[in-house]
Formats: sequence, structure tokens, C-alpha cells
Amino acid sequence: MSTEPRPAGAPSPALVFDTLFAYQRTAALRAAIELDLFRAIGEGPGDVASIARRSSASERGTRILCDFLTVVGLLSKADGRYANTATSALFLDPRSPACVASTARFLGHPEVRKPFESLADIVRTGRTVLPGEGSVEPENPVWVEFAHSMAPMMAPMAAPLGSIVLNGSKGPVSVLDIAAGHGLFGIEIAKQNPAARIVAVDWAAVLEVALANAQRAGVRDRYQTRPGSAFHVEYGGPYDVALLTNFLHHFDPPTCVGLLKKVHAALKRGGRVAALEFVPNEDRISPPMAASFGLTMLATTAAGDAYTLPEITAMYREAGFADVSAHPVPTGPHTIVVGHAV
Amino acid sequence: MSTEPRPAGAPSPALVFDTLFAYQRTAALRAAIELDLFRAIGEGPGDVASIARRSSASERGTRILCDFLTVVGLLSKADGRYANTATSALFLDPRSPACVASTARFLGHPEVRKPFESLADIVRTGRTVLPGEGSVEPENPVWVEFAHSMAPMMAPMAAPLGSIVLNGSKGPVSVLDIAAGHGLFGIEIAKQNPAARIVAVDWAAVLEVALANAQRAGVRDRYQTRPGSAFHVEYGGPYDVALLTNFLHHFDPPTCVGLLKKVHAALKRGGRVAALEFVPNEDRISPPMAASFGLTMLATTAAGDAYTLPEITAMYREAGFADVSAHPVPTGPHTIVVGHAV
Repeated sequence: MSTEPRPAGAPSPALVFDTLFAYQRTAALRAAIELDLFRAIGEGPGDVASIARRSSASERGTRILCDFLTVVGLLSKADGRYANTATSALFLDPRSPACVASTARFLGHPEVRKPFESLADIVRTGRTVLPGEGSVEPENPVWVEFAHSMAPMMAPMAAPLGSIVLNGSKGPVSVLDIAAGHGLFGIEIAKQNPAARIVAVDWAAVLEVALANAQRAGVRDRYQTRPGSAFHVEYGGPYDVALLTNFLHHFDPPTCVGLLKKVHAALKRGGRVAALEFVPNEDRISPPMAASFGLTMLATTAAGDAYTLPEITAMYREAGFADVSAHPVPTGPHTIVVGHAV
Repeated sequence: MSTEPRPAGAPSPALVFDTLFAYQRTAALRAAIELDLFRAIGEGPGDVASIARRSSASERGTRILCDFLTVVGLLSKADGRYANTATSALFLDPRSPACVASTARFLGHPEVRKPFESLADIVRTGRTVLPGEGSVEPENPVWVEFAHSMAPMMAPMAAPLGSIVLNGSKGPVSVLDIAAGHGLFGIEIAKQNPAARIVAVDWAAVLEVALANAQRAGVRDRYQTRPGSAFHVEYGGPYDVALLTNFLHHFDPPTCVGLLKKVHAALKRGGRVAALEFVPNEDRISPPMAASFGLTMLATTAAGDAYTLPEITAMYREAGFADVSAHPVPTGPHTIVVGHAV
């Protein structure tokens, strides 16, 4: 929302009120996804009565919600009819293969959102109000939801990660996929290289989602699992590659170093570790999505953070990795950080 | 938050994720206000350790919160030190007379925010999930919070409203201030015109706030109250002017017309009614803040709305008012709509 008309140059509290009302945007989008509104609008003709009918909703509620979504830029409106924007047609209409609407289920999960209700307390103490280790408590079912619903956000990053990790290799390669979740990253490597074999680590209930995805992708015969905590399970190996996607940010640096040492011990000499992370610049205020992500770690974990490249590099080196390189993913907000076991 | 780097021209789901994460901005600002962070930063020197000490908070939490607030534009950061922006110095540091930080208490009140957790259900049924008439249930304590905390948002609009309503009149003028809340609008008229007398209507607990404000403003001797429902209390009169500030939007048009008829009956012939309202354009999608406000009425009332000028004009006419004119307030997002009793 932009500033309302005011005398030119006069200071305005518009940003303050936009921020105090920002939660309404999240609520409106979540409601629209729950009501399958973007499909209802995409199928046309886009008048209030037919949208309401298709979404089994009241006309009054539909009209007000659609107007709000138009104000925030997720719909367009002309002559009293609503239409999906290019963005919502591609990313919010479930008929689109790029639809990311399911991510609202994980991003709106009470385990993720509830702590923000107590953010002042969290800033006071410096750790989540969730019990124990927060979102990374053993067998936390939130990760099953992650595996089910976040794949569409992560899928565009799988191909670039696969290319970077394989680096042209066509021969046999063994891959340890730690905190595999939906499994998409390991599965993509198996698809890019028919000689690749994947071993996935995650909680047992999460691995069922990864196994179903491996089956669907036709790589099930080269896909094995090791259920349990990444910190305690036997990795097996030695491996050529270890993946650590969306994982290090949940823990403090000593814990990360301990894990990286365990990973190092499971890699062949010269093997590679590849972390997929939100990596803010050293100023910690850019780029916006990576820099903002630290707040989610503050709210939902005991000691996690969004780490800068020098911080990740230092952890890698302490654990025995060298030749650290960073690869920003062109199709997402993440960066891939690769290190070599020496 | 703007888009992350991507291939030029490639479609991006950035707006979708910005919207799904938007609730974090509200949470961050509310936490910062609760921690008195903008004062702590305003008093300097702005390094994490001293901000944390002044806010009685952890350094880890303070750093991550301040970085987030910098990303959303409410702080600036240079050489590892944070500073208030021009906007936050003026509108969020409690040492500034224009500070609107207290509005977070009403805007974040559970009665206002909780219904947004059930927005899909509300869109289905077309009415709030709050019991009865929602926020306008009799004696709802949320209006005491409104009276206490929203004055700083409304104060900049009081002088323009007073000028428009008085229209240069220096002589005796009797004013009925319906749903007076903090009382600032009637009080401003009493300040602008020493011959003005105000009668304020609101719930008894709310009127105590207005009376205290009238006392502080030195107009208590010309300030009377009539506690009760605007729909049922005897107005007395006849009056020269009736104010209806932030009130009509809570009700459906027939209810508004009924109330306006009651107001009409309490006015002298030629007397004026002045409503302060969020008035969207007829497209209902501009200007942004007025157009967005309908969603708050959908979420928190049984049948309220943000009405367009033709809709308000039609209600005024049906209730016996003529010469309807609209005056956008230059110092706020509201519009003043004046009608004359014929």
C-alpha cells in the first residue's frame, strides 16, 4: 500500500500504519487460498456472484476480499470484474504447475506463526517461546507439513543445485541428503545422473514423503533412507556429496560445526558438502528476503540465525572443509555454499 | 521488501511470499513498540549492546529485530549502528509529540485482530465470527482502548474537521458528538470557538476518557455527556452540528439511515451533520488505505463497510439531508462528508 494523498513533502505515518496493518495481507491471502479463490477467478468470468458461487462464499465477503487483494496487487479489477494478475495466475492458481499456494500451509502453520505473537518476549530472552529446541525438536510434525507443502517453493532451485553439485559428473556418485524433507534436491541429482545413488536422512514420518516423491520421479530404486536425527543417526558412506538444505540456520555455530565434522567424516577425501541457505550480505540488511529470515529463526528456534558467507565459511573451515564457494540461486532467494573435504 | 535478484524479466513469486510473510512486519513493529526500542535507539548511541541494555532485552534478539526493522524501512543502519529514520523519529519515538505508537494497542487488540485468523469462514458467511454485532456490541471494552490509544492517529485530523464544521462561525454553536471516543473532535471545536458547547455520546466507560481529555484541554465547563447507545440514548438538542466520526462504517445502510434520521431530528433546521469516514473511490480499490478498510469491517462487524461517496450521499438524502459535500482531510486518510438538515 502506498501513501495516501498529503501535502507534498509533509512527513507521513503511512509506513507505520501499513506495517501495523500488514498482518491483514497475510490473512487475506491465506483466506483466498483456503477458498480456492484464484482458481474461481481464473476460470472466469470474474464477477462477484460467480466467484462467490464457485468459492461457496457470500457475495459480500467475496467482494470485500477481492477488493483488498486488488489493492495489494494480487488481483486486477476492471468494469467490476476481477482477474488474476500474471503473478497470481502463475503462482496462485492451482491449475498452474508453478503454483506455490500450498506453501501457505507450512508458512501459516501454528508452530511457525504462533511464536510471533510473543515476539517481544522472544527478543527479551533471545530464544523461541516454543518448548525445548523449538521447531527442531525431535519428530516435530511441522516437518511433515514442510515436506508436503514447501516443495513448490524449493522445486525451482533443485535443477541449479543439481548442476552445481554434480559439476558435469556422469559417473557413479553417492549422495547423502541430510534433512531431506520432500527429498526434491537428492531426487533431482538422481534424475540428472542415472548413476547417482541417494541416501536420505530425516525423521521417519518425513522420509515417507520423500520416498513417495522418489517413487513418482522414477528413482526409487536408487533412493535409500536412514530415519532419525541428523546429529545421531549413522550416516554410512563414505559419500561423494552431502547436501545440507535449509538446515544449518536452525542451530548456533558450535552446533553447526559439530554437525559439519560428522558430515566430513562421512565424505570421501575431496568429497563436497553443499548447503542451501538464506545468506544475507555482511551488512545483514540485504538482500531483503535473506536478511529478514533471521527473524523467523529468532522466533522459532533456540539459537538459529541466517548466517553470512564469512560465518558459514568459518564453520566449514573449522570442520575441515576448504575451497569454499558461494553460488546464488538465480531462481530463488537462496545461496548454495560448497566446500571440499580435505 | 522488494524482489530478490532473478533473471531479468523472469516471473517471480516474490509478492506472494512477501504477502505470506507480511504478518511478521506487524509482529516486529509491535514488539519494538512494546520494548520501547525506538526511544532506546533515539537516545543513542545505537549499537546493539546499548539498545539491548536500554530495552532490557537480549543482544541476539535486539540485533535480529533491528536488522528486520531496517529491511522494512523503519530503521537505518550504518557501520553496525542503528538510527531512527525520519518517519520513526517523528511517529514512533515516544519523545516526539506526533508519536502514534500507542495506536498499536487498539490496532493489535485481540477483538480487532483475532477475527482475521478466521477470515475464510468470515468470507463464507459474510459476517464477523465475533458474537452478536461484533465490535459494536454494547459496552464493548475495545472502545475504551480505542479512546485511550487512537487519539494520536486522529489528532492531526481534528483541526481540519473543526474548521470545516465551524466554517468561520464565531457565535454560539451547539455540537452533538456521537460515538465521541477520545472526544478530540468535539474538544477541538470547543477550542476553536469559545462559544461552542459540546454534548458527547458514547458508552459510559469511554466518556470518562473524553471527559479527562476535555479537562486537560481546558474546555470541561462546556463539555457534557450522555452515556449509552447512539441508537437509544436521548440526544436532547436541538443542535447546530452533529459529528459522526468513525461510526457509520460499522453498520449496514438501513441502520445508518435510521441513525441519520435520529440525528436529523436532533438538529436545528439548516443544522449540519459531519461524518469522518474512510471513503474509497467508486472503483473500491483506491485510495489504498480507505479501500483496504472494508476488510476490517468485514472481519469485525456483522454488516459494516467502507462506503463510497455516492453511497453515503444516498443515505444522507434518505434521512433528510441535502447539499452534501465531501472534504478529503489533507492530514490523514479520512474524508469528511457534510450534509445540511432540510
